[in-house]
Amino acid sequence: MTDPARELNRLRASIDNLDAVLLHTLAERFKVTEAVGRLKAENDMPPADPAREARQIGRLRQLADESGLDPAFAEKFLNFIVAEVIRHHEQLRGDAVAKRNSETD
Amino acid sequence: MTDPARELNRLRASIDNLDAVLLHTLAERFKVTEAVGRLKAENDMPPADPAREARQIGRLRQLADESGLDPAFAEKFLNFIVAEVIRHHEQLRGDAVAKRNSETD
Repeated sequence: MTDPARELNRLRASIDNLDAVLLHTLAERFKVTEAVGRLKAENDMPPADPAREARQIGRLRQLADESGLDPAFAEKFLNFIVAEVIRHHEQLRGDAVAKRNSETD
Repeated sequence: MTDPARELNRLRASIDNLDAVLLHTLAERFKVTEAVGRLKAENDMPPADPAREARQIGRLRQLADESGLDPAFAEKFLNFIVAEVIRHHEQLRGDAVAKRNSETD
């Protein structure tokens, strides 16, 4: 039988690898949502799009189901990410307002 | 200049691809933490390991910093995932107790 402490280290190394994938993918995802935020701001497009969000949730729930994940978790996960995206967009808007104010002052 | 609606669709397709990466990576990560939970239960190892958690948080904050992500977000993200892992482990424990009870009955 394998040594449990050694097996634990082996599994933990996989978790660390997967966490690096998750973090770098999230970093890339925020770069894209930032581009979306800029595009929408520059073209006076509405920031929220409920139909798109509903499609995203449906798609993620299905992907979760196919991957053996709880679809409710997938939805929670998307909400968690979207909350962070909104925080980023608010920061960008705050920066833009500050810039405009400093330009008109 | 590019058509903004078309550019939006292009960016959204990237978000959808990245979300599929995230979801499948999460599914894989839960498979590994499930194996960790089983290994610990079978070998009477303590379920929590604060030193390991501290190392994980430090590592993720550093990875976040290098990837242009907010380190505080990386920590929040790990906590979000760990909460789900604990929920899974509690389910497994519940299932094991139910099995034991049905075996002794």
